[in-house]
Amino acid sequence: MNTALLRELAAVLPSEALITDADVLEAHRRDQAEWAPSGQPLVLVRATCTDDVRAVLRVASARKVPVVPRGAGSGLSGGANATDGCIVLSLMRMNRVLEVDPRGLLAVVQPGVLNAEVKAAAAEKGLWYAPDPASWEFSSLGGNLATNAGGLCCVKYGVTGDAVLGLEVVLADGSVVRTGGRTVKNVAGYDLTRLFVGSEGTLGVITEATLKLRPKPPRATTLVATFPTLSGAGLAVTDIMARTRPSLLELMDRATCRAVEAYKPLGLDVEAAAFLLARSDAGGDQGVAEIEAMARCCEAAGATFVTHSEDEAEGELLLTARRLAFPALERQGATLLDDVGVPLSRIPELLAAVEGIAARREVLVGTFGHAGDGNMHPTVVFDRKDPAALARARAAFDDILEAALALGGTITGEHGVGVLKQPFLGRQLGEEAMRVHRRLKGAMDPLGILNPGKVC
Amino acid sequence: MNTALLRELAAVLPSEALITDADVLEAHRRDQAEWAPSGQPLVLVRATCTDDVRAVLRVASARKVPVVPRGAGSGLSGGANATDGCIVLSLMRMNRVLEVDPRGLLAVVQPGVLNAEVKAAAAEKGLWYAPDPASWEFSSLGGNLATNAGGLCCVKYGVTGDAVLGLEVVLADGSVVRTGGRTVKNVAGYDLTRLFVGSEGTLGVITEATLKLRPKPPRATTLVATFPTLSGAGLAVTDIMARTRPSLLELMDRATCRAVEAYKPLGLDVEAAAFLLARSDAGGDQGVAEIEAMARCCEAAGATFVTHSEDEAEGELLLTARRLAFPALERQGATLLDDVGVPLSRIPELLAAVEGIAARREVLVGTFGHAGDGNMHPTVVFDRKDPAALARARAAFDDILEAALALGGTITGEHGVGVLKQPFLGRQLGEEAMRVHRRLKGAMDPLGILNPGKVC
Repeated sequence: MNTALLRELAAVLPSEALITDADVLEAHRRDQAEWAPSGQPLVLVRATCTDDVRAVLRVASARKVPVVPRGAGSGLSGGANATDGCIVLSLMRMNRVLEVDPRGLLAVVQPGVLNAEVKAAAAEKGLWYAPDPASWEFSSLGGNLATNAGGLCCVKYGVTGDAVLGLEVVLADGSVVRTGGRTVKNVAGYDLTRLFVGSEGTLGVITEATLKLRPKPPRATTLVATFPTLSGAGLAVTDIMARTRPSLLELMDRATCRAVEAYKPLGLDVEAAAFLLARSDAGGDQGVAEIEAMARCCEAAGATFVTHSEDEAEGELLLTARRLAFPALERQGATLLDDVGVPLSRIPELLAAVEGIAARREVLVGTFGHAGDGNMHPTVVFDRKDPAALARARAAFDDILEAALALGGTITGEHGVGVLKQPFLGRQLGEEAMRVHRRLKGAMDPLGILNPGKVC
Repeated sequence: MNTALLRELAAVLPSEALITDADVLEAHRRDQAEWAPSGQPLVLVRATCTDDVRAVLRVASARKVPVVPRGAGSGLSGGANATDGCIVLSLMRMNRVLEVDPRGLLAVVQPGVLNAEVKAAAAEKGLWYAPDPASWEFSSLGGNLATNAGGLCCVKYGVTGDAVLGLEVVLADGSVVRTGGRTVKNVAGYDLTRLFVGSEGTLGVITEATLKLRPKPPRATTLVATFPTLSGAGLAVTDIMARTRPSLLELMDRATCRAVEAYKPLGLDVEAAAFLLARSDAGGDQGVAEIEAMARCCEAAGATFVTHSEDEAEGELLLTARRLAFPALERQGATLLDDVGVPLSRIPELLAAVEGIAARREVLVGTFGHAGDGNMHPTVVFDRKDPAALARARAAFDDILEAALALGGTITGEHGVGVLKQPFLGRQLGEEAMRVHRRLKGAMDPLGILNPGKVC
């Protein structure tokens, strides 16, 4: 069977596209979700064009072999983790920006292009590709699309899906479908674009995307504030969101600030309960007015320290603490990174619940994230060598998912379900919605070959 | 069969929910797409709660009877037009705003509530529900969702789908599914919310929606400009979009300006080829800078007259011409309203093609619309009593769809496919995408009872 499969793939693909080297396969077994299960792939295919992808899916369909599509491998939920005997289908050699149309305000790209490369190509024409996951310098657009990746600026400018006009997708049987188009608005038929975006390679393989570009916004003003209580910080967040349009609104808790200070001393107040970062890119005196309104929200909510800077370099410096949050926590041990979301009004309750879980499970949890979207990353830190610590960490990770669900929230705001959160999906969605998922999956991939075991 | 069906419905619904009066049925046969075909319904059900909707769909499934969901009847594509022997399911008695949560920045509403009522409920808490179809004062939220309605402000704030956090939907078999939730970001599973939004009642019946609210933006500054050529106006549109973030960017052609002047003289230049209206709500000196940048774009593109006003009342006055566009054209005769979209860069070509079609088909076509989104409404005006004129008008309507497709555009930007544009959908989407549509439809509505003949 294996030999026959390889022979069939070899017959329809360039020889250099087909890799069975054990070390290379090992390096393509998983993404960054270290603790999620992964299987042993049979072969890696490095597709260089849509026809390669079609060829792989035709063979896979004929032989009912699972196909696990893969971008840069920077995913955080195991969405690209291999299943035993699968074909890992890498899209990283389909890495061209095919077109930047400055008058149409769009770019056409292949899935293996990095987010940073799209931004750069847009910037060359004086334009901006907005979505900015933390991984923007090393994550692929295909992966961004597959997970509907978020980021820091999406509080004002939306997530990856909001920047997609159209897609080319290869379906399970190797046929090719184009969704959407080059127009900003389009209600001709079902929103297939949005169905594929965020579907983690379980409904089709994205081979091209038409992305929306924008003019670059005015230079941002940056505000930082510290709070003696989590509830005060939460109150400030909802007030800021109800009164202004921040282009960034991030929160870090005490544990995270301490980890950052231990990693790179920046003079953060390690006694404060929470550290808030906000930006306005409204520009001119409106930007100043907006930052001042944000400052008033912080002061009214009990902030002990509030400052802001209109200087771009200084603003970047203020953002350093936030950028270091995850690396700093990673230096303290192994990590299990949650990605929960709650309704805006319930952020303080989430933060309090996480503190309780950390105490009860006797683990360190540093929480940071996109407060303006209610999307937080409580990060469980533990000693990799201690099996008991791993067990406690896993329990804490699950408790945090439960806490988010209890607050009417979501188990994943931007990282995706993958295999890591798959066991919790039904708890969030309910039996009826899961049944709809299975119906859609069955309609699009009747043989179940596309990234099996992910999402639903 | 008919008697048995009515008896079964009567057994599960309050008696006042069931209407068979011929005049009432006649009034519920169609929406505003006067020229689209419609059939003869058997019965009208006025649902008052989700359980009523469930009951109707259970009976309809058991008897394989078509169900045509219906909101305010203000649709423009025949999406609510009855099929022979169907149950027309009106959602207009499910018309409550269930909740406005100012700290969660959301509202929960039933489908029969008017867009204007959602705006009013949000405004009471100092917040804003953004989507503003031209029909906002008389269209239902359920209809807005079913068509993924656009509007004037969506050039900056997005369409209806961009303002939806979650839905309750009754499926064809009467089961209830909840999609999304109360969080801003959510990637747990497939984007079912976006699948139902814009599906025109063919995949399920929306019985509740959780909508995103925002702070009201700063007061807008309004600019008007006139252009001696369509290409100049088109150039100004793409320049404005590439350099600023207008909160409104609307265009009217000469035929439309003349119709408006004939209806209500406003002093429009009826010799100009195009009239452009733009707004900035950036606020403060940034708003002024943005309007000045827009003015420079207009002047560089050859505008013969450019002015702007920061006064709100004056701004509304300037917008009057645009608001009168369709009513003014309707006064000149019967109308066939197109809703095509093209890539931003191709607006001048679309406008030129429409002029050519009007000349060739010997009909009057007034074009106006959401230039900043490339979404235009060429409106064919003709003598209702002249069958030859109707034939020419229909031919022109179709020619305009063809022209949009030839420019890489869409047959519908915001009004939906309905029955009016159904024959053209395959031309736009291609056979593969149509096949995906049918697969999804088959998965969600295997008996084909939900609004048959619409979309696909």
